[in-house]
Amino acid sequence: MSTLNVALDIMGGDFGPSETVPAAVQALSLLPQLNLILVGNETSVTPLLRQHGLLNHPRVRFVHASQVVGMGDKPIVALRTLKDSSMRVVLDLVKSGAADACVSAGNTGALMAMAKCVLKSLPGVDRPALIKALPTVAGKRTVMLDLGANVSCDADTLLQFAVMGSVVAELVEGIASPRVALLNVGEEEIKGNDLVRHSAELLRQCPAIHFAGFIEGDCLFTGQADVIVCDGFVGNVALKTAEGVVRMMGQLAGYPRKKRSFLGLIAGFMLKRRFSYLNPDQYNGASLLGLRGIVVKSHGRAERRALSTAILLAAQEAKHQLPLQIADRLESVFSDRDL
Amino acid sequence: MSTLNVALDIMGGDFGPSETVPAAVQALSLLPQLNLILVGNETSVTPLLRQHGLLNHPRVRFVHASQVVGMGDKPIVALRTLKDSSMRVVLDLVKSGAADACVSAGNTGALMAMAKCVLKSLPGVDRPALIKALPTVAGKRTVMLDLGANVSCDADTLLQFAVMGSVVAELVEGIASPRVALLNVGEEEIKGNDLVRHSAELLRQCPAIHFAGFIEGDCLFTGQADVIVCDGFVGNVALKTAEGVVRMMGQLAGYPRKKRSFLGLIAGFMLKRRFSYLNPDQYNGASLLGLRGIVVKSHGRAERRALSTAILLAAQEAKHQLPLQIADRLESVFSDRDL
Repeated sequence: MSTLNVALDIMGGDFGPSETVPAAVQALSLLPQLNLILVGNETSVTPLLRQHGLLNHPRVRFVHASQVVGMGDKPIVALRTLKDSSMRVVLDLVKSGAADACVSAGNTGALMAMAKCVLKSLPGVDRPALIKALPTVAGKRTVMLDLGANVSCDADTLLQFAVMGSVVAELVEGIASPRVALLNVGEEEIKGNDLVRHSAELLRQCPAIHFAGFIEGDCLFTGQADVIVCDGFVGNVALKTAEGVVRMMGQLAGYPRKKRSFLGLIAGFMLKRRFSYLNPDQYNGASLLGLRGIVVKSHGRAERRALSTAILLAAQEAKHQLPLQIADRLESVFSDRDL
Repeated sequence: MSTLNVALDIMGGDFGPSETVPAAVQALSLLPQLNLILVGNETSVTPLLRQHGLLNHPRVRFVHASQVVGMGDKPIVALRTLKDSSMRVVLDLVKSGAADACVSAGNTGALMAMAKCVLKSLPGVDRPALIKALPTVAGKRTVMLDLGANVSCDADTLLQFAVMGSVVAELVEGIASPRVALLNVGEEEIKGNDLVRHSAELLRQCPAIHFAGFIEGDCLFTGQADVIVCDGFVGNVALKTAEGVVRMMGQLAGYPRKKRSFLGLIAGFMLKRRFSYLNPDQYNGASLLGLRGIVVKSHGRAERRALSTAILLAAQEAKHQLPLQIADRLESVFSDRDL
């Protein structure tokens, strides 16, 4: 059984070590092949590591980093001045090969900027993309990209996203010949702006992609596509809109306007059970795809369970050697196109 | 008390006259100033009109239209060949002044194409926009535009949307000095694509607009803005995503995977009550703004209650003489800008 080495930025996220350290414990207990490299400030976290039995743990190594990237730090400033931050060090560990993947719940903009700079893009990738698996009513998950790494894209970029998304759906989600759909304002061919119409032409002509046409915003969670492709502006707005609606409904369900009634309590309980698989804990972790290394971004607000999901996702991507597989697929697709 | 004359396309929508006719009855009972001009196929609907007491109703007039626009008809074809359709006739009634506003639940693309052609844009409006009032957890509603009339926009167009949206928020929603936000992928000034950053500059320089900065997708329903402006591609995806999530949660709440338990029944009932104000019945009706007449599009799936909401919205816009007010505001804003 080969080991999977994941570097974890234990300083990142809204809650920092108080959640990342217990998340490490959970992830280790769930995946026997997992080895963790915990990166953070030694002085401040040693007591917590001791408390959780991670100080001399056979599958845990600790690496000190003197700096921390703040949630409000500008990406360009973080990139230039925080070279010994826990976020930067986990990326350096991936680059050197000491880690197979890394996870951070810190500042998204800084993580993307640092990851691109440290790890570089794979050949054939113009722009890395943020991808995430969404829960669907059909049971299987749908991966969606880009979720905000690129606010302006051209059709060639969306084609690359489609290829990369297909590889993730196959390897990580276990879906053979995944159906790829382009997010649009209607399903008919004539609908949409120049970008989606031009992208649809490219996808239709690409034999390596199972193109399933356009999909509308109300079908993101129906499971009718396995890969949903869009530019990062639209993807970010759509994903955040969905999160906002779920949160609003949770608020409405949990906090009746006057006072909590007995039936209200029952309804709240039932809701929690019924919607458990929409729980962000179950699908935390967006991956930055297209780099020469695996980078998983956890939600900043993630608590230990959700954080451990992100760590396991990184390990799974490492097990499948995702960057290598993506590079191979891109090479075969684009050499096909050149024929 | 002056009357408000609304023309209703009774053939439109997924259910046609079986829902539009009862909706007419409801709207008439709710608003004493309302007079309706019902437009449809005389032969097929006369029995239904008689059954609902609308045949010789003092506040109802019937106009025959020999054609119907189908949900699958292409806009350009409908525009050219369906000149005696119920959808076209309601627009003609608005143009001639016989009606103060019109309502259709039919084919959105055809309605937009016909409305633009028949009613023409107001001076100062490059492109009409679809606007809708969204429910928020704060109680007051937020209007959002464009929801799909224009899949590509420039910054000048978004500025016009902001002005038109402000007029709707003031007059229809009763909000003084409405806060206008641009939908973006982050709240910081540096975030977003060229379109939103350039639009933000224009909005900041426009004294007639209370510009509140950027807003993200997860804040559409929080009530932190009164007017949300975006291009029609992003707006359509965001609105449909929200609808899709609400529908998915409704499905999950209503249909447990195995069988419906007693607690499940209670939870379903509570959910329905708790979320009643998210019910599409309460906020059905998107308006096509920027034309020389009032056009309200009802959701195609709307039933009688929701349809009557759309009729009342049209009447309210007529009462406020919305096109006139928008024209005045645009004129004052753009003459200010030229100074």
